[in-house]
Amino acid sequence: MNEFDFINKYLSSKNNFSKFSLNYRDDVGYANNSIFSTDTICEGVHFYKDDNPFLVAKKLIRVNVSDIISKGIIPKFCLLNLSLGKDVDDIWLDKFMKGIHSDLNFYKLNLIGGDTTKNLHNTVLSLTIFSDLKDKKFIKRSSAKLNNFIYVTGTIGDSSLGLFCRNNPDFHLLKKYSEYLKNRYLLPKPRIELANFINKNATSSTDISDGLYSDLKNICMTSNLGAEINFSKIPLSTAASKIIKENPKLKTRIINGGDDYEILFTGPDGLEKKKNITKIGKMTKGNQINLIDFDDRINLDGYKHEI
Amino acid sequence: MNEFDFINKYLSSKNNFSKFSLNYRDDVGYANNSIFSTDTICEGVHFYKDDNPFLVAKKLIRVNVSDIISKGIIPKFCLLNLSLGKDVDDIWLDKFMKGIHSDLNFYKLNLIGGDTTKNLHNTVLSLTIFSDLKDKKFIKRSSAKLNNFIYVTGTIGDSSLGLFCRNNPDFHLLKKYSEYLKNRYLLPKPRIELANFINKNATSSTDISDGLYSDLKNICMTSNLGAEINFSKIPLSTAASKIIKENPKLKTRIINGGDDYEILFTGPDGLEKKKNITKIGKMTKGNQINLIDFDDRINLDGYKHEI
Repeated sequence: MNEFDFINKYLSSKNNFSKFSLNYRDDVGYANNSIFSTDTICEGVHFYKDDNPFLVAKKLIRVNVSDIISKGIIPKFCLLNLSLGKDVDDIWLDKFMKGIHSDLNFYKLNLIGGDTTKNLHNTVLSLTIFSDLKDKKFIKRSSAKLNNFIYVTGTIGDSSLGLFCRNNPDFHLLKKYSEYLKNRYLLPKPRIELANFINKNATSSTDISDGLYSDLKNICMTSNLGAEINFSKIPLSTAASKIIKENPKLKTRIINGGDDYEILFTGPDGLEKKKNITKIGKMTKGNQINLIDFDDRINLDGYKHEI
Repeated sequence: MNEFDFINKYLSSKNNFSKFSLNYRDDVGYANNSIFSTDTICEGVHFYKDDNPFLVAKKLIRVNVSDIISKGIIPKFCLLNLSLGKDVDDIWLDKFMKGIHSDLNFYKLNLIGGDTTKNLHNTVLSLTIFSDLKDKKFIKRSSAKLNNFIYVTGTIGDSSLGLFCRNNPDFHLLKKYSEYLKNRYLLPKPRIELANFINKNATSSTDISDGLYSDLKNICMTSNLGAEINFSKIPLSTAASKIIKENPKLKTRIINGGDDYEILFTGPDGLEKKKNITKIGKMTKGNQINLIDFDDRINLDGYKHEI
């Protein structure tokens, strides 16, 4: 069962409080003129035992920061749940908590509470993050309009290609490129500098955490529209271009690969004039995503994490 | 390392935002005129694989409800993080989600968001719960006054004695008593009906989750006071009295046993006139807890869950 099925089966149909949860059709919830999001990362699934704990901490904070800033809002507060697995020792915990404080300071986030428990097996980490809106609007996933243009921030697919490099250390690629991609996997950099621009200009918005195709599908489904995107317009890093040239099969990772933590949004024409924003397509009638100039249509259903 | 050490080492000294976190000296945090709490329960630590998932769900909600109502506030909103372990199947999940919805309805809680992930090993569940204050005050842990009286709700120690019965099925005790105690372990019943009374009358308050001694110590430490309690005044259920008579060593569980989810609070004289409230002692000078008429002083440091 993937998360969409879970929501449909267990939440949407039983939800009497859609004004707070946005009927679970967004990655944030709304209450008390604030927006909230929460994400969990599990050792062995979302990070690994031998990952630098300083970076694991930053990843935990950043995957959550990403959810709020993609709505055009700067996050302010968080709560931290640590279930520390059997391999956690003082050295791991020291480095991890240094990473937490480093990013709390960087993002000016107030940690207001949490819970710490031992866990019998692996480490499981959750962060809940929120911000008051001060009557500012936030950008929903469900409000794209017909003929809006589709934009992304930064470059797409790097993180998933970085994971490939990590899992295939013998793959032929210049070290500077594989290091670049692996760093993009290890350390997301949510586009906090674009949050206000998104707030002022976007009609709908989400972060790209499950993969470009999957997250665009969410915008389409919740906005009751289709989309048309040009594969050749999707912005790639030099490293991503190089690795795809070496192994063209990896092209599907640009579409399906998760963990980019860039922003996917819709809006009027011309937003690509802003630095680090690229126009890749437009919203259409219907409910299909039409992927122009892409020659490998296998597995295009996007990455859905099974639960 | 226990949770107090963790907070001292990694949080309090590095906290620039004490007005939000209450310097981590309470079990709630404060932001946006709302209070927040979060608790995690892990399979194999806080619940077991063969526990009824319907009750596990209720336990998850109730341990969190308990934190907010002990502050004299009715909780309103929550977010749910499910990391579902390898033994979770559709039947488990169906029952678990029925338990979630049952208690969301019972406590009139709005589930506004969450995250679902697979986990490689055991199941780890977190809930974050909050309520707006509408400029109502909430009762802190740190505000007990000298010569305030100390009160508890309900009966104390049942849950820990229920866990003993569960782990020692051959122990001689009438079935009706062991069943009563085991049910108190499986299904906490936070005293939501006393939340307004606490709000109006208590000077300091906490729920009893780590054990009476340990939670009273928190009130003492954060209020810079000591306490004197009469063991013979601590309210016991009939079942608890019977099992202690059978095995007097179990008396320490009244003091140290966790998971009661009753309320421990301080206030002026006379509050025991209210139903289900018992006066057990008073706040004193110094920083010691003096336990009167208790004859077994071993292991009186209270239950501290190690992390």
